[in-house]
Amino acid sequence: MTILFAAGDWRWPIWEAPLRAAMRDAGLDDGALTLRADPATVEAMIYAPNAETPDDFTPYSRCKAVLSLWAGVERIVTNRTLTQPLCRMVDPGLTQGMVEYVTGHVLRTHLGMDTLSRTRWQPVPPPLAAERPVAMLGLGTLGTACGQALACLGFPVLGWSRRAKDVPMIECHHGREGLRGVLEQAQIVVTLLPATADTENTLNAETLSWLPAGAAIVNPGRGTLIDDAALLEALDSGQVGHATLDVFRIEPLPQDHAYWAHPRVTVTPHIAAETRPATAAQVIAENLRRLRDHEPLLHRVDRAAGY
Amino acid sequence: MTILFAAGDWRWPIWEAPLRAAMRDAGLDDGALTLRADPATVEAMIYAPNAETPDDFTPYSRCKAVLSLWAGVERIVTNRTLTQPLCRMVDPGLTQGMVEYVTGHVLRTHLGMDTLSRTRWQPVPPPLAAERPVAMLGLGTLGTACGQALACLGFPVLGWSRRAKDVPMIECHHGREGLRGVLEQAQIVVTLLPATADTENTLNAETLSWLPAGAAIVNPGRGTLIDDAALLEALDSGQVGHATLDVFRIEPLPQDHAYWAHPRVTVTPHIAAETRPATAAQVIAENLRRLRDHEPLLHRVDRAAGY
Repeated sequence: MTILFAAGDWRWPIWEAPLRAAMRDAGLDDGALTLRADPATVEAMIYAPNAETPDDFTPYSRCKAVLSLWAGVERIVTNRTLTQPLCRMVDPGLTQGMVEYVTGHVLRTHLGMDTLSRTRWQPVPPPLAAERPVAMLGLGTLGTACGQALACLGFPVLGWSRRAKDVPMIECHHGREGLRGVLEQAQIVVTLLPATADTENTLNAETLSWLPAGAAIVNPGRGTLIDDAALLEALDSGQVGHATLDVFRIEPLPQDHAYWAHPRVTVTPHIAAETRPATAAQVIAENLRRLRDHEPLLHRVDRAAGY
Repeated sequence: MTILFAAGDWRWPIWEAPLRAAMRDAGLDDGALTLRADPATVEAMIYAPNAETPDDFTPYSRCKAVLSLWAGVERIVTNRTLTQPLCRMVDPGLTQGMVEYVTGHVLRTHLGMDTLSRTRWQPVPPPLAAERPVAMLGLGTLGTACGQALACLGFPVLGWSRRAKDVPMIECHHGREGLRGVLEQAQIVVTLLPATADTENTLNAETLSWLPAGAAIVNPGRGTLIDDAALLEALDSGQVGHATLDVFRIEPLPQDHAYWAHPRVTVTPHIAAETRPATAAQVIAENLRRLRDHEPLLHRVDRAAGY
């Protein structure tokens, strides 16, 4: 078996040791892992899209699995040369990082940390979390984990997903009608949907108008989930009280973008969650073992749905 | 039974309705609750110390219980005229507010929210909570609830208390030797000890020197737990990286206090947790019922220990 690391040469020093260790732990020969190989010999690829990595998968004729290093696969799934099975990353380390980011920024918003006076004693205790409904748009691995963490802290969590779901501790809604009902009650909205044609501009002028005035938004999901012009207008009018944004249509966020200087926007530089080599390598190794043993792969992407 | 509300006339409009409702729910006659009474007739007092309320308990000769509205009783417990049984407030609403404050400010510190650039894209994801040990000084109702909430989020929590305790999800230590071991490992220290002679200046020049350089402090407990001069020196030297302080020896914090302008200090105006009338009234009513039925009172203060 030849396993190609196709995620950029600069990532090799970060990933090589964790991947080899996880492969050995899974009973695999880590000698199969390589940074260079004749495409025709490659049986599996560990992949992240960037300028260095192939965007034509045609020569990889023997490849039986493309294993994404990232949770979001929107830049890969549309590649028509990619006919091999594609797997997303579902990394427990990434999920944990996302839970910490979402919990932290929801609490920052809830507790009014940004509006604390740095000069005057003005004691106005915030309401309890029980009085602050949170909408969780997206109930995949990340949305579910974050929604449940917020529910554990006492927030009423209204979940929304494309298809009907049933998630413990979350009041689940779905479909377009469901979205309106969820947004009408939400004081804080967290967007953790995958980037697909269906989810583009989920938050737009109409859906933002459904929110109670002054609601806050936290987007650690994908930049395309939000219509930026509509959000800026809603921020200017006060319809949206604050937006904490980690992801953008263009990254790094261009220096002249209105989000940088907006008093009601907090920009974080795509740090909500990143794949952690130590835990992600174990997920990769498990899928390589399944490939060897002819077992179904984990986290297969549904090409029609786009995630 | 005559029950005197002795917590300040201005609080009566806030507390009267929740107290009467809770008394009726507990099967008590809420007609017994009054804002004015001949001291000799009072059988129980609902009490908070302030300029309006009695500091000589001698005339309350028939009073069988003084029920504090607040969790901290250091201003009451030293009153030598108070010979009646004294009960602290253990309010689930207050505990919940404290959990939200502590979790929020520990995550703010952990995620480096204060040092986010507002102008430049500098992606440096924080470590996971699992790599950030937190010391919880004090394992009473509040310290236990906050420590367990942090442990649920993945932080390793090292607990410390005066006496040996055993708390699920928290690695418990006690005594002076225990304190050193806990502080030597802590990247974030949360102080939730009661204010007693024993706990005064728990964080002082010596104990602060035990911390790893750059550790952060969150004090939502009591101002007396910290030697302010020692903390300011440790902040100036960088030994302490940041302090988030909610409580002070003098409140409101005087306008010219060095904490206000210090770049490494975040002042919050005693908002970490307040007694919530709706939930606290139920605790008061339960103790009044126990008094009527000659059952042991809840949350009795140990006068020797001071809490």
